[in-house]
Amino acid sequence: MWQLYHFPLCPFSRKVQLVLSEKKVPFVLQLAYPWRADEPIHGLNAASRTPVLERQDGKLVLTDSQAICEYFEETEDRSPLIPGSAVARAEVRRLTALFDDNLYGDVTELLLYEKMKKRLVLRQSPDSATLRAAMRLTHEHLDYLDWLVDNRRWLAGAQLSLADFAAAAQVSVIDYLGGIDWSGHESAHGWYRVMKSRPSFAPLLKQKMEGIPAPRHYADVNA
Amino acid sequence: MWQLYHFPLCPFSRKVQLVLSEKKVPFVLQLAYPWRADEPIHGLNAASRTPVLERQDGKLVLTDSQAICEYFEETEDRSPLIPGSAVARAEVRRLTALFDDNLYGDVTELLLYEKMKKRLVLRQSPDSATLRAAMRLTHEHLDYLDWLVDNRRWLAGAQLSLADFAAAAQVSVIDYLGGIDWSGHESAHGWYRVMKSRPSFAPLLKQKMEGIPAPRHYADVNA
Repeated sequence: MWQLYHFPLCPFSRKVQLVLSEKKVPFVLQLAYPWRADEPIHGLNAASRTPVLERQDGKLVLTDSQAICEYFEETEDRSPLIPGSAVARAEVRRLTALFDDNLYGDVTELLLYEKMKKRLVLRQSPDSATLRAAMRLTHEHLDYLDWLVDNRRWLAGAQLSLADFAAAAQVSVIDYLGGIDWSGHESAHGWYRVMKSRPSFAPLLKQKMEGIPAPRHYADVNA
Repeated sequence: MWQLYHFPLCPFSRKVQLVLSEKKVPFVLQLAYPWRADEPIHGLNAASRTPVLERQDGKLVLTDSQAICEYFEETEDRSPLIPGSAVARAEVRRLTALFDDNLYGDVTELLLYEKMKKRLVLRQSPDSATLRAAMRLTHEHLDYLDWLVDNRRWLAGAQLSLADFAAAAQVSVIDYLGGIDWSGHESAHGWYRVMKSRPSFAPLLKQKMEGIPAPRHYADVNA
């Protein structure tokens, strides 16, 4: 059994939750807010951020979402998520990094700052120019998702992979924060509805961030 | 034979150069400045950044430094850089991400903006408050390097690994930009001198960024 330190809108904790669920690795959630100085994660992770995954005997702590996903890819035979040849695996990792780094840095990180941190920690209003810029960049990323979905069975190729879960984790946080407008992105929208309908996704759609209500459509797998 | 699109101060291209050299994979360098709109990398990499590695037959393009390193870890038996058990490999990947994400985001990225991009592209002076903040954070990262070096043979454990090359790649760029003060960090300094002395490092110490002179000590393996 593992304990996952997370907060409900951490996209990287969501990515790990999805992978653990797909691989049927049992875990319990433990709330952790990285912006609070007294959180145990600061002692468990030199990077001072979620996710942190601790084995319940306390003898193994894993951090960094990609290192965690690679660990379970190597130790669990069930549901390979970095499948195929070395070239196919490079494509899964390229896209996973594109969502973890670029989609996160261009959009998710800005929305978390403007709509979560400013509200809960800094007690400020979001900056509308930043939100507009994030919305523009979201459309560019959704264009690329459309292209992938139009040209492949799943994002990285013929098989469902970590790239799909990394992308869906970011999209779900952006959607929770009201940042997704699907108009003109029917292909990406169809893909996200399929991802949302997976049993591994159901717990994420129920998790609420205290003080930040989700829009009504957020948890609706048909919306 | 491979072609590596890079610019001399790109820490992630440096990480890839070191790994290719250690594994004796032949490659040639091709200059690419991601901030210029007419660079071929924009068509080769959806993330529009270096490194981009293209096989000379033009039929395979790899992007994202970690995806590239994992690809050669899987396809080249020589010099394993993510060695050992799944737990040991998770530790290599955790530290690699710590240097690629946190040391880069806290320090290297700021120095590249203040001391390279402002000089070459924006024609502005660096902001001294930002430089001071980066210097403070550099000391925190060097403290952690000291701790690793004091407690282990190499950064991730008993064996030289990708974590050492990822850290050295960031440190080398920070050092080029005048951001390293080794006082109080004898352990990390000793480790970096060892890294600098490796044959794989020699080409990096010769590469110059046009318009940005390196400090005199930068290329001295004894300094």
